[in-house]
Order: sequence, then C-alpha cells, then structure tokens
Amino acid sequence: MKSVEEQIALIERGAVDFHSREDLVKKLTRSLETNKPLTIKAGFDPTAPDLHLGHTVLIQKLRHFQLLGHEVNFLIGDFTGLIGDPTGKSDTRPPLTPDDVKRNAETYKEQVFKILDPEKTKVVFNSTWLGQLSSHDMIRLASELTVARMLERDDFKKRFESNRPISIHEFLYPLIQGYDSVAMKADVELGGTDQLFNVLMGRDLQRSRGQEPQVVLTMPLLEGLDGVNKMSKSLGNYIGISEPPESIFGKIMSISDDLMYRYYELLSDLSMAEIVALKEKVAAGQLHPKAVKVQLAKEMVARFHSQAAAEDAERNFEQVFARHEMPDEIEEIQLAVTEAEIWVPKLLMDAGLVKSTSDGRRMIQQHAVSIDGVKVEDINAAVPATGSILLKVGKRRFCRVIFS
Amino acid sequence: MKSVEEQIALIERGAVDFHSREDLVKKLTRSLETNKPLTIKAGFDPTAPDLHLGHTVLIQKLRHFQLLGHEVNFLIGDFTGLIGDPTGKSDTRPPLTPDDVKRNAETYKEQVFKILDPEKTKVVFNSTWLGQLSSHDMIRLASELTVARMLERDDFKKRFESNRPISIHEFLYPLIQGYDSVAMKADVELGGTDQLFNVLMGRDLQRSRGQEPQVVLTMPLLEGLDGVNKMSKSLGNYIGISEPPESIFGKIMSISDDLMYRYYELLSDLSMAEIVALKEKVAAGQLHPKAVKVQLAKEMVARFHSQAAAEDAERNFEQVFARHEMPDEIEEIQLAVTEAEIWVPKLLMDAGLVKSTSDGRRMIQQHAVSIDGVKVEDINAAVPATGSILLKVGKRRFCRVIFS
Repeated sequence: MKSVEEQIALIERGAVDFHSREDLVKKLTRSLETNKPLTIKAGFDPTAPDLHLGHTVLIQKLRHFQLLGHEVNFLIGDFTGLIGDPTGKSDTRPPLTPDDVKRNAETYKEQVFKILDPEKTKVVFNSTWLGQLSSHDMIRLASELTVARMLERDDFKKRFESNRPISIHEFLYPLIQGYDSVAMKADVELGGTDQLFNVLMGRDLQRSRGQEPQVVLTMPLLEGLDGVNKMSKSLGNYIGISEPPESIFGKIMSISDDLMYRYYELLSDLSMAEIVALKEKVAAGQLHPKAVKVQLAKEMVARFHSQAAAEDAERNFEQVFARHEMPDEIEEIQLAVTEAEIWVPKLLMDAGLVKSTSDGRRMIQQHAVSIDGVKVEDINAAVPATGSILLKVGKRRFCRVIFS
Repeated sequence: MKSVEEQIALIERGAVDFHSREDLVKKLTRSLETNKPLTIKAGFDPTAPDLHLGHTVLIQKLRHFQLLGHEVNFLIGDFTGLIGDPTGKSDTRPPLTPDDVKRNAETYKEQVFKILDPEKTKVVFNSTWLGQLSSHDMIRLASELTVARMLERDDFKKRFESNRPISIHEFLYPLIQGYDSVAMKADVELGGTDQLFNVLMGRDLQRSRGQEPQVVLTMPLLEGLDGVNKMSKSLGNYIGISEPPESIFGKIMSISDDLMYRYYELLSDLSMAEIVALKEKVAAGQLHPKAVKVQLAKEMVARFHSQAAAEDAERNFEQVFARHEMPDEIEEIQLAVTEAEIWVPKLLMDAGLVKSTSDGRRMIQQHAVSIDGVKVEDINAAVPATGSILLKVGKRRFCRVIFS
C-alpha cells in the first residue's frame, strides 16, 4: 500500500471540495495501521443510465480509491425511485418497480465496470435500509436540520426566491442521502460539485449519531465539447461511453488543446507527472498537440471498447481527416435555428460551405459531405440542431457549427 | 333531530372561522336524510392536562354537537408525544411512555366528562394509525405541501423572518394533523383560532385523497380575568376547572360586565335568546348586573362541582363580600414585583390598604384580611405575584391588585 501522502496526492487530483484533509489523513493512517480499507461511497440515480464522459469523472475517482486498495460502494439510490415522484405532478417520474431497478443496475454495471474493477466494487441499494425506517425515524431525521439551513442550498434558494414551489418532501431527500452515509458507515463520499450540500449532510448526520464524519470530496462537472458548458445530453456537447469508436475518437480530436489537458487530468490513467511532461514537450515544440490528442482519444476508445478498436479508430481518423489536411484551426460559426432539426443542404448553405441548397444536394450526391466524420449519403438527411457539429465539404472545407 | 338551520345556528355560536357553511349544509342535510351522525374531531395535547375555562370553550362546542346528536371524537395526539422532542433540545419534552399517555387520557376524561356525555364521546389516539405509516407514506405526505405555503403559517413566518430556527420536522406536524382527519374520515374539525392553518390542512389532505373535505370551525381564545389577555396559566388570569367552588365563584364575580356576556356566549348552556333577554333586562334597569353574574358563577360551579356546591358558594360569597357592602366598583392598582411571591403584610402596605407591614400583620391576627374571598390566618403567608387578586381588609377596604 502507498503512503498516506502518496494516496492523498492521487485522491485530490482534480477534486474541487475536500473536507477535510485532516480527517482523511487520520482515516488513511488508521487504515494503513490496521490494514483495513476505507469505505468509499458514491450515489447514483436509479433511472436507466446512459453514461457520457462527464459521468465518468466521478467513476474515475472511484477507480483511484480502488487502485489504492479501498472498498468502493456503488450506491444505487432506488428508495426514492421506488416512490416515484410523490407529487404526482411529473409524468417523467413514475415509480420504478423492483425489476426496473434490478435491470437498471445491470446496465450501470456493464458501463461502470469498463472503469471499475468488478471484484472490488460493492453494488448496494439504499432501499435496503431506508425501507426499514418507521414514521418515527423519519420525523427524527427531519428534526436534524433547520428550514433556513436547507434553504441555503443553491437550487432551493433560487427556487424559493423566484417563488417556484418546493415541496416539503424535497427537504427530506438531502437528509435521506445523509442517512445513507450513517447506514453505510462511509469513510469518504464522492459527488459532483452540485452535490456538495447533500454530501456534507452525511458528515452532519454521522456526527450527530456518534460516528466519525465522512470525508467529503467533490469532482467538477466536466466541460463538454464546446469547452464552456458542462457536458450534457440536452446540450448535445457530449461523448457517450457507448458511442462507436470512430465517434469517440473524432469527438475528442475536435476539442481544444486546453480542454484536452483538462480531460487528461480528470479522465486519463496517465499520472500527473506524465501529463505535465507531455505539456512541456508540446510547449518546447518537441511534440505536436495533435499527437497528444490522438493519445487521449486512443486511451478513451481503448477504455470503452478495446485497444484494437483504438488502433482502428486512429487509422480511420487519419484516413478521413488528416490525409485531407484538416487545418489546425477550424472556423466556428453560431447558427440560430428555431426548429429541432435542420436539413443538411440548408445547413451547408447557412454555414457558407456551399452557395445554395441545390449546390449542397449536389455535393452530397458526390459523396463529398461528412458530419462529425461520418459521410452523408441522403440528400434528404436532417440533423438535430443542438450542440455543435463538425461539417466537411470536399477535401478542405471545414466548419464547426454551434447551434444557439 | 333539529333542522339544518337550527343546527347551524347553534354550531356557529361564538365561532370565528367557518369553512364553509355550504359544506356544512350539505353534510347536515345528508345526515338528516340518512339518519347518520357526523364525525366531529378535536385534537388535544397528550401532556398532562389541567384545564381552565379557556380550554372549555372548545369542549363546550363539542357539547353542542353532542346535543345535536353527532359523534364526538376526542383525539389525543399521542403520536408525537411518544417521540418527544426529536431535536433533543428541549428538556421539557421527554418522550411519553404509553403508560403516561393512558394516565393522561384518564385525567382528560375526568375533566371533560364534566361537560361532555361519556356515552357519546369516542376517545381516540392518533398513534393507532400514524404508528403504522412507513417511511414511504411519510414522504408522500410531505409532498403534499410546499415550503412557501408552510411558511405562511403565522408562527413559522415570524420565526423565519426573525431568523429563529425551525426544524424541518416541525413542517411535518401540520401534515400529520391533517392526515388524522383522513384516517378518521372527519366531517368537522374544531380548533382554536391559532390552529386554523393546521385544521385547514385536513381539508386539503382529505380532498387530495378523494374524501369530502371536513368543515373547519375555530373557536376564539377566551380572554382571562383581566378581560384583555387570553386566559393562561402563565398570566395567572385563569379559572381552573378543578379549583374549589368558592374560588371559581369569586373569580367570576370579579370580571367586568362585558366579559361576563362574552363568557355567557362561549361557556353557558343558556341559549343566545336567553342571554339577550338578560342583557335587555339589565339595560332596562329591571335586573342588576351582579345578579346576572351570580347566575353565571353558579352555572359554572354547578358544572364543575354540583348544584349544591353552587348554592353554597353563592351563600358564602354573599356572607363574605355582599353583606360587607362590597362596592360595585373596586379600585384596581398595578404592582410591579420582581420576586415570584410577595409577603402578604407587604402586599397590603403596597396596595395602600394598611400603613405598614406591622399594621398588616395586626390586621391578619385580627382575622380581618382576605384574599380572593379566603381569609388569611398566617402572618408569614406569601402569595404568588402573578395575575390579579382581590384584597379585602376589614369590612370595606377592597382593592384589586394586578401584578405586572
């Protein structure tokens, strides 16, 4: 096992909030002395997951704890999912059945075990202990926090101040999440920065129940392909971990150099020393940034597919783009589109890559148009007008369109 | 059974809030048609009761419903009492044991059955159904109201605005009280005006669960002997229903004429027509107000003791006060006393009834001092410096002392 200081160096890599180093030192020291791994907790939504790289920032951090020999508890928060949306107001949150939960858990495992070691991962469900709580227990739990404190939580605060309704049961959820830490006797809980309040609840509740408070570690929300907004499905700026190798590869090749180093820090298995070395070589002109990007793209494809798929994807990319002299700087344009989709010949015209939609149709017929590295063969094709896409017409005309 | 209109006339006597007359008409009409009594609900605290006349305003209203043939449910809210104060912050609210609850219930019954018909009163405990709720049910319940709506409740609002803490479980209590109405299928719930918010919760919850909403009726908080502040133990301006006949009688004789009519409306079994007739006779000079007060004092003593005790109390009062020419108007003085008690000779001096404490001691030795109609025999006697008391020295020197 690594020393306390070595462990902390890896643990705090990329982290935003860290409460507190002293507590972690104490826990790690005892762990080394007693040869007992720490209990690491991270909670996940029980709805059907379709993970993108943004989600894997946290999972990568769990992997670090596994590499250090600690016990990772992958907590599926099925308790509230089994209730559904109790307000009955949301069509999108009908109660899950226990079968749904089981099925979703399997989907999760398939995806996260591309990063985590299945042998060292405990998948747990909070309905196990929360379902046992009585109405008395619930009241006792609710007594452990004040209304004012709860309204300090950023999202509650905004909703309260703008007079958007907050149901009282929503105040119970952070307490329930905190209680999970008590039930699990968690030593460390990970969450996104947007989860800080809830994750700190665990510390408070453990303390009030005579447990040693967990260490709280939050990871940043990963920026999407645009380098600005957080990666999300609805913004279209994401890389899904189940996308085909070419797509993952191509999307990573499309990000800026700055964002590339950010992805390295948060997603790569390279050590920080190795990443710094790469950066220095680029700065000294000994290495082209594109080569560094290729290395990251291959690592990601290898992680979610295989090493062979990574080699193939690289070859394919070089064929489609590189040999056709993709410029280092690609022009970006913003397009305001009110419809959900846009017809490709119109898109080419609006982007200034062709003179007219008939010109655009002709280019498609000549197999000269590709979008995000995939050839367009249908003159009637339309694409969703969300996020950003890379257009190519002929051998040299590139344009990145950002829909706004 | 009386007609709907006759019933409503009695029901709304003295009431403050009434939601809604239309609903009550519907319920009473159906009750008459089906010959099925309405289910009347009133909730009481499970802590040991020591009732004063203020509490009996509500119980008198329950009596009206009994007289009209409806079913009175005397609800003892033991559920939260069995939890105690879950914050653990209050020394004064340790959890009650089921034995405590049973014992307190007996004390309640002894007292309220002086007004209510034991045969027609169902004593129920909300732990019966609330103890069965699961953590899921609790969350569902909490989802039925918003934080903003809860903060409209007067006491919460004041505490929130002045930054005094409100624990989240306190938000659950009104919901729990509302759920009681659902579980009891209550047709009418009574409460003090300070309970309006909670009592209306029952209407909302019944509606959201497909029940016909209960009618809500609030009764005023009875003014105490001073005619200004609400009757309460801590202000000392109360008439306890377990006080001796002389004390109840004497205290009622001490109230103002205005307050006397208020007490008639809220406490007496006389009909409003009879009360109006008394008032008119007094106004016409056909009846002395003192005689009307004697009648009320006797009714109250008879209610809480017996008719014989009422006659005795009247005789005693006439002997002690009336024959000694108690003036119609007794001087009132305010006394600021920092100690909890005051030595009677000093009190007499401060009230200006004697020249010195030794003078006061001498009057006591001569059996010439009485307080609230009771002779003082001990020169070392002290009285609590709260509320107001009637002092008498010799045959004609009277003074009402109000401690401030």
